[in-house]
Amino acid sequence: MRTIDAPDMKVTLLMVAEIAAALRMVAGEVDEGRVPVGEGYRIVRDAGLLTLLVPRSAGGGGLSYLDYTRVLETLATGDAATALGYNMHNVAIGGLCESARRELPPKAEAFRNWVFEEVVNHGRMFASATSEVGAGAKLTGVKATYRRTGDGFVLNGRKSFVSLAGIADYYITTARREESSAVDEVSHFVVAKDDAGVSFEGLWDGSALNGTATAAMTLSDVRVGADRLFLGVEGMSLFKLVREPHWMVSGYMGAYLGVAESILRHTTDLVGADTRKRDSAVVRADVGRMVVEVAATRALVHEAARLVDERKGSVDANSAVHAAKYYVGELVSRLAHTAVRICGSSALRKSNPLERLLREAAFCAVMPAKPDECLEYVGKASLGFNMFDSTTIEW
Amino acid sequence: MRTIDAPDMKVTLLMVAEIAAALRMVAGEVDEGRVPVGEGYRIVRDAGLLTLLVPRSAGGGGLSYLDYTRVLETLATGDAATALGYNMHNVAIGGLCESARRELPPKAEAFRNWVFEEVVNHGRMFASATSEVGAGAKLTGVKATYRRTGDGFVLNGRKSFVSLAGIADYYITTARREESSAVDEVSHFVVAKDDAGVSFEGLWDGSALNGTATAAMTLSDVRVGADRLFLGVEGMSLFKLVREPHWMVSGYMGAYLGVAESILRHTTDLVGADTRKRDSAVVRADVGRMVVEVAATRALVHEAARLVDERKGSVDANSAVHAAKYYVGELVSRLAHTAVRICGSSALRKSNPLERLLREAAFCAVMPAKPDECLEYVGKASLGFNMFDSTTIEW
Amino acid sequence: MRTIDAPDMKVTLLMVAEIAAALRMVAGEVDEGRVPVGEGYRIVRDAGLLTLLVPRSAGGGGLSYLDYTRVLETLATGDAATALGYNMHNVAIGGLCESARRELPPKAEAFRNWVFEEVVNHGRMFASATSEVGAGAKLTGVKATYRRTGDGFVLNGRKSFVSLAGIADYYITTARREESSAVDEVSHFVVAKDDAGVSFEGLWDGSALNGTATAAMTLSDVRVGADRLFLGVEGMSLFKLVREPHWMVSGYMGAYLGVAESILRHTTDLVGADTRKRDSAVVRADVGRMVVEVAATRALVHEAARLVDERKGSVDANSAVHAAKYYVGELVSRLAHTAVRICGSSALRKSNPLERLLREAAFCAVMPAKPDECLEYVGKASLGFNMFDSTTIEW
Amino acid sequence: MRTIDAPDMKVTLLMVAEIAAALRMVAGEVDEGRVPVGEGYRIVRDAGLLTLLVPRSAGGGGLSYLDYTRVLETLATGDAATALGYNMHNVAIGGLCESARRELPPKAEAFRNWVFEEVVNHGRMFASATSEVGAGAKLTGVKATYRRTGDGFVLNGRKSFVSLAGIADYYITTARREESSAVDEVSHFVVAKDDAGVSFEGLWDGSALNGTATAAMTLSDVRVGADRLFLGVEGMSLFKLVREPHWMVSGYMGAYLGVAESILRHTTDLVGADTRKRDSAVVRADVGRMVVEVAATRALVHEAARLVDERKGSVDANSAVHAAKYYVGELVSRLAHTAVRICGSSALRKSNPLERLLREAAFCAVMPAKPDECLEYVGKASLGFNMFDSTTIEW
Repeated sequence: MRTIDAPDMKVTLLMVAEIAAALRMVAGEVDEGRVPVGEGYRIVRDAGLLTLLVPRSAGGGGLSYLDYTRVLETLATGDAATALGYNMHNVAIGGLCESARRELPPKAEAFRNWVFEEVVNHGRMFASATSEVGAGAKLTGVKATYRRTGDGFVLNGRKSFVSLAGIADYYITTARREESSAVDEVSHFVVAKDDAGVSFEGLWDGSALNGTATAAMTLSDVRVGADRLFLGVEGMSLFKLVREPHWMVSGYMGAYLGVAESILRHTTDLVGADTRKRDSAVVRADVGRMVVEVAATRALVHEAARLVDERKGSVDANSAVHAAKYYVGELVSRLAHTAVRICGSSALRKSNPLERLLREAAFCAVMPAKPDECLEYVGKASLGFNMFDSTTIEW
Repeated sequence: MRTIDAPDMKVTLLMVAEIAAALRMVAGEVDEGRVPVGEGYRIVRDAGLLTLLVPRSAGGGGLSYLDYTRVLETLATGDAATALGYNMHNVAIGGLCESARRELPPKAEAFRNWVFEEVVNHGRMFASATSEVGAGAKLTGVKATYRRTGDGFVLNGRKSFVSLAGIADYYITTARREESSAVDEVSHFVVAKDDAGVSFEGLWDGSALNGTATAAMTLSDVRVGADRLFLGVEGMSLFKLVREPHWMVSGYMGAYLGVAESILRHTTDLVGADTRKRDSAVVRADVGRMVVEVAATRALVHEAARLVDERKGSVDANSAVHAAKYYVGELVSRLAHTAVRICGSSALRKSNPLERLLREAAFCAVMPAKPDECLEYVGKASLGFNMFDSTTIEW
Repeated sequence: MRTIDAPDMKVTLLMVAEIAAALRMVAGEVDEGRVPVGEGYRIVRDAGLLTLLVPRSAGGGGLSYLDYTRVLETLATGDAATALGYNMHNVAIGGLCESARRELPPKAEAFRNWVFEEVVNHGRMFASATSEVGAGAKLTGVKATYRRTGDGFVLNGRKSFVSLAGIADYYITTARREESSAVDEVSHFVVAKDDAGVSFEGLWDGSALNGTATAAMTLSDVRVGADRLFLGVEGMSLFKLVREPHWMVSGYMGAYLGVAESILRHTTDLVGADTRKRDSAVVRADVGRMVVEVAATRALVHEAARLVDERKGSVDANSAVHAAKYYVGELVSRLAHTAVRICGSSALRKSNPLERLLREAAFCAVMPAKPDECLEYVGKASLGFNMFDSTTIEW
Repeated sequence: MRTIDAPDMKVTLLMVAEIAAALRMVAGEVDEGRVPVGEGYRIVRDAGLLTLLVPRSAGGGGLSYLDYTRVLETLATGDAATALGYNMHNVAIGGLCESARRELPPKAEAFRNWVFEEVVNHGRMFASATSEVGAGAKLTGVKATYRRTGDGFVLNGRKSFVSLAGIADYYITTARREESSAVDEVSHFVVAKDDAGVSFEGLWDGSALNGTATAAMTLSDVRVGADRLFLGVEGMSLFKLVREPHWMVSGYMGAYLGVAESILRHTTDLVGADTRKRDSAVVRADVGRMVVEVAATRALVHEAARLVDERKGSVDANSAVHAAKYYVGELVSRLAHTAVRICGSSALRKSNPLERLLREAAFCAVMPAKPDECLEYVGKASLGFNMFDSTTIEW
């Protein structure tokens, strides 16, 4: 396993571009089931990308949110599925990594150190397993439960849409205290792939992104030690989400930006090679519009990520990530339509990578935060609602 | 084989709705390759739909263009692929059927009668095979050739995007006179599936619509008698297209309208059954917008078809069908995006018929007439260009 | 005063086109205040258009809703302001005219006959005065009151956005029974311009449509006889609106369609006269898109009007008029933008009629039914809400 | 006269915000003609803003293109007309200011120094007068001519759309060498307001932006010295435009961004103050969408300006400014429509500042670079055309 030593972002991006090139070679094969789903993750893990967010003091790459977003963007130009799955590792550990400069109580400190060591020294991959059927990742809908035991907790429940299912080593999951219905009794825990009672079932049958290895996870009387309670404190889940929603809301916005860039590149390549299309002022105007829209979205996404780095948890930063998540979803959908219009039937051949990209593009609008949720956040924030009041937005 | 005796359109549409219901049962299976491609056509043929356009005087249903469009719309709510394939039968024979009241020279009369008899008395299915690689169905790009022999013609060439490949009994195809490059030396011929030298290769590998049975057709020294020359006159292809483009341009607009209606119905069904969504004013507004857009497009499509019936071949009618074809393509694409946004991840599950509909929707924008061609026609017509001058629009 | 004798719609439309041409000559002058506001109405009144809707049996033109919509469309191509004001006359009497074949109780019958006679025999113009500040035309917001006296009623209140203010002879207005807050205690009354206590204040200072003569109307202890109670029955206002909303919702959709057609015509005229623009494929595609969008909206508007004629008051018809009203508003706005983009700076010169049309176009989205209300109606109707339950939609 | 001493951008923006507040007080009055057009410019001149771009070494503010864009954005939130007029001063001198670090031949050096001194020491205002009727600012359309005399040049011609007409002290204008038709014989000259033969006629009768003081300028045998030839070299106009189009293309993009922000602020203020609207999830979603779109456009505009600062004249920077100019034009138009929809009739009252903003918004799409030109540049650049070949884009 190689780790990222070079702090310099240009070098990092060049390296990631190479990894993306490697992923590009297998993306289609994984999509069609001819290569096993884990192949993309093997490449990413071997390249040392799992440590990118971990603070440098703990042996990681110490990337900012902006730089992380650019890494994901580049990675996704190779394979969106792998980039999206890889993002879930970072969603799981991102908040901890960002907290590195803050002093924490001893239990939390120990938890954080354990996570960093698992990632840096043992090459472990984490995943996030917080969605449930009918409720998405909303805390109000958490039905999984936990109860205290002498030395830890027992978890029961069923999580849906778990990416990296059976591939990640650890899963950060949510559970509500038994017999409680209060949102502030929801806590985050870590379960290991091999813990007794943890099981994964059939891959999700989506029209694309098989490569994310998304499945349901069942927890049957899973016993975990007290050290597996997230940051060592119960009932902090809501606080975490309301204050710093950027990972859940916009972690993968970079990945969809990468998809957009790939759709654009395939389209310009095709038009460039087809004299008839290249000579059409109407087609060039369409291509020009695509370029402008991608550029605007990229500028917005980068600006949002920069705001997170500068004012993490502020209403401005939170609003910006909701805005960017919404915009990139609209972009890829519009782009997909225009690409089909410009490229014609070849865009819809299974043998054309563009065909896969078009299917992948549709997913941006269904992954949380959903478009309507994004607009609701942005709208309320701009109208002066108190965004730290948990009744303003449903979490 | 049953024929359509009932002149009454309501009865016809009710019958077609029943056929659509039958098609709906197998559409998914054909899409996934679990049921052979011909199944939809068997249903349509057995129901007697092949004769719908043939004049009543010749034993057919004598449908107007508007009524045909409504039939196709209804049929496509069951299965778009079958409706699109079925449309190619009607594209092939539609012009002849419409000419029924016009007196023709003896040779042409004989040809027309032969076609009607083949359809009505022998249940034959026709198809249109006029596209070639790199040129679409443009006459200027026809590379297939014919040469005269003592008693007929010899054809050579390769046609692409032939729907009903190997299923239809006859194929109406285009060829240029050997050693000529003039557009007015292109003629239409009929070849039979079993003629020596006619062969079909591998189905087109599109992301949807396998059920159309679209493949390439090769003609190797195919000998046909003089009676297989379309209407018995050489060099009439351009005249035919410029004057009455409605079949080529808009034959299947009804089918895409049916796809739009299916997407809408799936969405309202899902929202109606999900209290959370039904209670959201934002979702209801989105659904309302979908309803409005479908209604506007249907009104435009029906209006265009009515214009064809009233003033076939007029600039107004021709412009209207180009307008309608463009609009329905934009509609289904927008609708697909909104449906995904409203329905969320369930819309993208392979087990959901909506997922197939979304893939099918994309095809409207790539089938001729292409969106840019439609706007070019409508734009020029509205600016007073001479639309009967073959240099105005490339055919 | 001429009346419309010719039942034939083609003749009527030709006559209306002539009137539109006359209006076109003064539209700009009225807009700029160089010709008094009443001039357009004088033309319309002199031409006999006030009787168009009155049943033939009562001496009027007996136009259907579809034919009325087409008349308004044609009229508005001459002057939108006059067409919109003229529409308010028809909104006021339209429901009565449509009820002509229904037998009514004696009081209602007398009321209806009186209205028809006033219009046909005395050339009176009616207007609708039902909006109030902060509530629009919603019955729930009616603050004007009435109380019974021995032989009639006394009205007090203030109505806003009264078109034809001081020009119409009669105003149909709404009032709530004193000391009642129930919506079903709202009734419609007729007040005359010269009734004691009726006054009009300063014209509304809008950016366009001065020609509608829109102002506020104050009712100070206005005494009216029992024969001025609409149809002779109190408390029917809600029933009227919920059951047959087409006049309030979509009466003027024809007028905005006319505006759209004028914008389009100005644009095609300008492009046709400018070789550089006419030779640009990009401009032609833009023009083509405008043509398509106008055609689709016209088809939807006509279809909605036809549905009203066929199934007045049905959910389908009501939903269709909301859909059409919404769509025409979106159309004119998009069209205005595209026209500016195509025509360039000349579109924004005060001396160009297009400049006025662009200002007028904006009003479609603010006149009731508002876009959001339209989508709410259509969305709820398509999701199976009970549209005759007065809690479903706020009236 | 105060000059900008403070290099710190925050301080500058705060100061500009104050000036904007002062402009806001008079914007409406100037629009309606109740305050003379020059008032806004007096405020800007007195505040010392004329020197902002001049290099610090020459006594100016030395602003970068990005910082300039932000200044213009802030200024335009007060009054778009003044910001747009002020921008023409900077379009006129911007290229010179940016060239400050480059050594130039003696004549050019003298010219540059003269301009800087006129601005810094004498408070002179410049303007750009390069458009002609029917050709815009295209060099290919320049009909104004010059001929050499013993000690200078004689200019003749007529320029249109000259902002700051009669207000600026100097006008940078273009002329073609007599008897030449070659684009590379077009040169830039400076004429003074008071030069014999220079005259201005009637203000342009646009629907907004009277405050820009836009009129036609006639040059009748205007004699200027050799020192008034731009940079002292003839025939450099094309080179200048092709290489560094950012001033002509995007100088005022900041101003339109400011208009967008004002429209947004008026809308959120109105919704925030109207409980009914604030409580509507549909309205909040609309507001949210406006916020997102403004944010995306601002990010794109700032990114484009940053690229100019980093890689002035590169294809990337040039393409970025065309993209940003296009996008901001589409934005303000969409925003205007949504604002009307949300705010309702109050948005269209002449007494509401929003009404003026909506009229101003339309101008972005007609000022050069036109939307189609922008897309043509961006499309060609992305398809690998040689953008430094003067045949690629018409200049």
